[in-house]
Amino acid sequence: MSHNTFGHLFRVTTFGESHGPAIGCVVDGCPPLLPLTEADIQVELDRRRPGQSRFTTQRQEPDQVRIVSGVFARESDAVQVTTGTSIGLMIDNVDQRSKDYSDIKDKYRPGHADFTYDVKYGIRDYRGGGRSSARETAMRVAAGAIARKVVPGMVVRGALVQMGPHKIDRNNWDWDEIGNNPFFCPDAKAAKLFESYLDGIRKSGSSIGAVLEIVAEGVPAGLGAPIYGKLDAEIAAALMSINAVKGVEIGDGFGAAELSGEENADEMRAGNDGRPLFLSNHAGGVLGGISTGQPIVARFAVKPTSSILATRATVTRTGGEAEMFTKGRHDPCVGIRAVPVGEAMVACVLADQYLRHRAQVGVVEPRWPFQP
Amino acid sequence: MSHNTFGHLFRVTTFGESHGPAIGCVVDGCPPLLPLTEADIQVELDRRRPGQSRFTTQRQEPDQVRIVSGVFARESDAVQVTTGTSIGLMIDNVDQRSKDYSDIKDKYRPGHADFTYDVKYGIRDYRGGGRSSARETAMRVAAGAIARKVVPGMVVRGALVQMGPHKIDRNNWDWDEIGNNPFFCPDAKAAKLFESYLDGIRKSGSSIGAVLEIVAEGVPAGLGAPIYGKLDAEIAAALMSINAVKGVEIGDGFGAAELSGEENADEMRAGNDGRPLFLSNHAGGVLGGISTGQPIVARFAVKPTSSILATRATVTRTGGEAEMFTKGRHDPCVGIRAVPVGEAMVACVLADQYLRHRAQVGVVEPRWPFQP
Amino acid sequence: MSHNTFGHLFRVTTFGESHGPAIGCVVDGCPPLLPLTEADIQVELDRRRPGQSRFTTQRQEPDQVRIVSGVFARESDAVQVTTGTSIGLMIDNVDQRSKDYSDIKDKYRPGHADFTYDVKYGIRDYRGGGRSSARETAMRVAAGAIARKVVPGMVVRGALVQMGPHKIDRNNWDWDEIGNNPFFCPDAKAAKLFESYLDGIRKSGSSIGAVLEIVAEGVPAGLGAPIYGKLDAEIAAALMSINAVKGVEIGDGFGAAELSGEENADEMRAGNDGRPLFLSNHAGGVLGGISTGQPIVARFAVKPTSSILATRATVTRTGGEAEMFTKGRHDPCVGIRAVPVGEAMVACVLADQYLRHRAQVGVVEPRWPFQP
Amino acid sequence: MSHNTFGHLFRVTTFGESHGPAIGCVVDGCPPLLPLTEADIQVELDRRRPGQSRFTTQRQEPDQVRIVSGVFARESDAVQVTTGTSIGLMIDNVDQRSKDYSDIKDKYRPGHADFTYDVKYGIRDYRGGGRSSARETAMRVAAGAIARKVVPGMVVRGALVQMGPHKIDRNNWDWDEIGNNPFFCPDAKAAKLFESYLDGIRKSGSSIGAVLEIVAEGVPAGLGAPIYGKLDAEIAAALMSINAVKGVEIGDGFGAAELSGEENADEMRAGNDGRPLFLSNHAGGVLGGISTGQPIVARFAVKPTSSILATRATVTRTGGEAEMFTKGRHDPCVGIRAVPVGEAMVACVLADQYLRHRAQVGVVEPRWPFQP
Repeated sequence: MSHNTFGHLFRVTTFGESHGPAIGCVVDGCPPLLPLTEADIQVELDRRRPGQSRFTTQRQEPDQVRIVSGVFARESDAVQVTTGTSIGLMIDNVDQRSKDYSDIKDKYRPGHADFTYDVKYGIRDYRGGGRSSARETAMRVAAGAIARKVVPGMVVRGALVQMGPHKIDRNNWDWDEIGNNPFFCPDAKAAKLFESYLDGIRKSGSSIGAVLEIVAEGVPAGLGAPIYGKLDAEIAAALMSINAVKGVEIGDGFGAAELSGEENADEMRAGNDGRPLFLSNHAGGVLGGISTGQPIVARFAVKPTSSILATRATVTRTGGEAEMFTKGRHDPCVGIRAVPVGEAMVACVLADQYLRHRAQVGVVEPRWPFQP
Repeated sequence: MSHNTFGHLFRVTTFGESHGPAIGCVVDGCPPLLPLTEADIQVELDRRRPGQSRFTTQRQEPDQVRIVSGVFARESDAVQVTTGTSIGLMIDNVDQRSKDYSDIKDKYRPGHADFTYDVKYGIRDYRGGGRSSARETAMRVAAGAIARKVVPGMVVRGALVQMGPHKIDRNNWDWDEIGNNPFFCPDAKAAKLFESYLDGIRKSGSSIGAVLEIVAEGVPAGLGAPIYGKLDAEIAAALMSINAVKGVEIGDGFGAAELSGEENADEMRAGNDGRPLFLSNHAGGVLGGISTGQPIVARFAVKPTSSILATRATVTRTGGEAEMFTKGRHDPCVGIRAVPVGEAMVACVLADQYLRHRAQVGVVEPRWPFQP
Repeated sequence: MSHNTFGHLFRVTTFGESHGPAIGCVVDGCPPLLPLTEADIQVELDRRRPGQSRFTTQRQEPDQVRIVSGVFARESDAVQVTTGTSIGLMIDNVDQRSKDYSDIKDKYRPGHADFTYDVKYGIRDYRGGGRSSARETAMRVAAGAIARKVVPGMVVRGALVQMGPHKIDRNNWDWDEIGNNPFFCPDAKAAKLFESYLDGIRKSGSSIGAVLEIVAEGVPAGLGAPIYGKLDAEIAAALMSINAVKGVEIGDGFGAAELSGEENADEMRAGNDGRPLFLSNHAGGVLGGISTGQPIVARFAVKPTSSILATRATVTRTGGEAEMFTKGRHDPCVGIRAVPVGEAMVACVLADQYLRHRAQVGVVEPRWPFQP
Repeated sequence: MSHNTFGHLFRVTTFGESHGPAIGCVVDGCPPLLPLTEADIQVELDRRRPGQSRFTTQRQEPDQVRIVSGVFARESDAVQVTTGTSIGLMIDNVDQRSKDYSDIKDKYRPGHADFTYDVKYGIRDYRGGGRSSARETAMRVAAGAIARKVVPGMVVRGALVQMGPHKIDRNNWDWDEIGNNPFFCPDAKAAKLFESYLDGIRKSGSSIGAVLEIVAEGVPAGLGAPIYGKLDAEIAAALMSINAVKGVEIGDGFGAAELSGEENADEMRAGNDGRPLFLSNHAGGVLGGISTGQPIVARFAVKPTSSILATRATVTRTGGEAEMFTKGRHDPCVGIRAVPVGEAMVACVLADQYLRHRAQVGVVEPRWPFQP
């Protein structure tokens, strides 16, 4: 991860500002011969798209993706496939509403990247947050749609598990509920609560944080790299790199601090599918930075949107003091739309680690049990 | 971060197994002309060194570091300095006690990297954990001692803030207390509690987790890189890459999920030192992946040591089932010694980001306030 | 340099196929506040553009570049500048003439990448050479136009110095002649010869190789990185990565093999501009992988275009044998258009090394002479 | 390639100065389960070792390598193998003869890195050339010995093909002659000539350049990466990074500039081993940056040693002018010992590309001929 690129072998580079003509990305290192159409990517983008309920920004972006390169169909082929060359993706910005930026261009929103971009670069594109806008995450979701195809059998899903102080009841977890509410919430009862709670937040012009959980199933044992290129370290970076994220956990996460060694040890029995049977998953599917074959479980905390209607104290570009409040469209709980983004980031990390494992070890197979 | 290297410009590559002849590392990209002696590094290593209290492993390792390359003193120089070439560091392993590994070489400790290393590589050095041993972190601390010199005026300190269920009282925080107890605990009263609590854990042959906090002060505003090379993303990866870490937070971390936008916004007033005065630091010193000039605050959770005296169910290398308990020396709370390791990792990330900032922007200076 | 990216800090990633909808690139790590308009890039693209004389392919591509991101003008700014975020560039493909590919899709052109792309990836986009087409080099030229702005005072120019067996007379070298002939030839007399010589080649449906020379002036001393990130090593990779290049030289190059130590040593006297005065430049401006402050001089050899009218023996995709000759538009001496490409590559390497130097050493200044 | 590291997946990082206590390297990303002992590496080091004839420096270095990490033998194993973790290698410097550096520490040898290291870093270790000494190449040879094991069936050999103006007769090429003379010369007759020629050079205190050729056989088709990570681009960088190298060629190299398209095209017929049969190898085994399955052929030019007995004009550190001649041990033709170094660099590039290919494509197999 450096600059605007993440990944080592499955490598994603994004570009584009919130209110520029377009956003785009390049996916490099993708294996050849994977079927890939724009529809494969669009289905994921549509899950993240704004303006689908009253709980996300009312900006209307169709987010129609175009594949510019890296795919081909020979005349005999029924479907186009990846060619192994770099895949260029583009989404035109449509609803970059022309507006008056006089209230924002010389003042910094507290809790926002306005100040830090300006102080780092000496200039910032203040239109809609420019490069720091969550609009960039559309390209992560697009790249993630390709990443999902790289690891055979892998399924990556995400859910919102906490909104403000309200947590879901994990006994009610039902993946099928995710699509039944505008929150990606797996607990139907909690979803009801979130709805009324967030309506209150929204009407007051405030915002609230959230916690999300990503689960990757079908991940082979052995993915990860020694010491610094660890699977969990890269998942942590990937999730922390999403706008507004302030915390990341793997498995029991901070809860592990309160466990004894006996409680934390995921005991093992001999499974009958060529894998050990783990009796628990406190580790979240990662030991020593390498996947165990259990589901990868990661959680991340998203802070509340900093663009709010309340007046806050701030400073101006030229050193004065000012009061600020932000009009315009925004997400009362920006964490909601981070669910597909989190999924995409985890999928990208796993695709990358899958390729790295295949490079060093040659095969991705259960070695266990070893021959006596 | 990839394989056994971390950092982009300030780049650390480590090697060595727990019970091999030596461990070592290469620090590459360090600026020239920084004074650097073995004593500068030794002082940090001594803080991490095992066997200093009954609460850490009784393995006796002097951890004497040797600088093999990358420093030089011209005849006229009073002190040797870095030359800009790669710095090689070596620590001989002294107390790699010869023992019988028959109980461990064909069985996997639950909650340990034994299984994942074996299934990934088809072989593992089972002597003392081999490469997955926390012994590797000595080289991180050594590299961190160099990193501390790269950012002028930066001070990075760490503390243990929670052991098992017991948290310190933040009102009692006194950095001077850190050296007065074997836990790096800044709360004298909590340290007393930890002592009796951990004695109980230790005597029972069990282990317990912990939470640590790292604070970096004197960090200039503007460090960080766009989108994927974010300062907080890299801190997250760096801390998560430490053995046994399961969670990372920046600023309010998971607490931010429960905040409203009004509460979370760190309001700003005009400071009189060429920096804005922030009225709070929920952000932990990072906005949009770039440092604000406030202290960087990161926390991480360390799980309990997996090597315990209790018997746990496991599997054998050849597919059988077995029971396991681990004799020998280990840390009842491995989180304690992770304090200097966490400091080192944060220092390395900041050194790296400092160089990256200097590359792209040319100067590291407060730009704010801008000329009208 | 890996996959479709080159550069470490000034990092260029390209995408796009010859006959796809567009080609593009992302320039990442560019310093902020550099003035940059589309016209700045277009002027370089126009130098490389095909169809400008009868000696280059007759494909008509306007090569109109669009800057999609990474630049901004505040309301008060007279000119837009780079913002430090990733710069996206796009060129639509206009003249990807629809044609019948039946003669090429299942047969491999000898001396072309047809076979190797197919055998590597299991598929290739055979339309116009796909990704292996020299069309990709338009994006290199575009990136190079930005790179030229990164190193203050640097001027990078190139010339064709040999066509087939015919070399220019270096005594006639006049940079002003470069624009007076369609060959980028600095020797007016040789240009006349090249014209009649290449007309013969062209009319016979054959092709011929060439040697090009790139000279970078105004490069500060001290650029380069130790041992593997050497300035000359990176120039070698950059030039060798251009389509059809088979050899690279720095300074005297292969001629240095015939020199004695006395002849090769570039003697030095005290200059009066804060730099040593070198009495010769056999080294081509690089010693120990680091720039000396003299002009950087690099040469590279371009093989003849493999698409020719003569019939050659080849194999088919399914293992048969066949004869092949290539109809259609192509360059009789592809080396000609490689001049602006070579300039761009050298400019990119120098921009990258300039940023890397600034990162590690902090300042780019003549240190010499040192204080006694 | 950056700083002191080369390679992307098979990654070599070196450290150490000529007259420091030791030199070393870390080989990271090596596949597990490859048999590896110190003897495997020593045999290659012994080929490069100085002091073996009167034609190389008389410095006596046993160059005994120690493997510090990354290998292991289970009790049941007959031979130790790589474990997939980072491999640390160390060679102690033995004969760093204590001497008076007063004539060199404040004066720059013309044609040497003395000046550029000083002007870049503000300091240089002037003892024996410090980091810029060819002594560093011992670690390249050591890493190359490991790289040779990564690509099954690959054989990499090198030869000296030109010394000063004298070229070998390629009709006399006999690999078995390489070991029969102190020049790695494959032409017995030319070796005789070289002997008397170099004796003259040596006795006069002068030095001379050379051209070397590296041939890699048994390289599967398909190795290489698109556009910038090309196989030939990386070979060019690898060879140009060797001390004193000024030019690199692949296949016909600069000779290709004089060929017509008909001459240059390597025609193909159907082979009977699952590969096409190429009728010539002008391409040197690389087309479009990807290996063809033919032998990889690369040449490189080495300039004469800059340390000579003749007096040359130079400048001092503090800005004065001076005359210089270099006493002490050195190589009259430093190109000779570059043969095993060039082999090692090519082997490392191929190992890296082999792993990268395996990552992206999954299998390393002849795909051709494809199913109809």
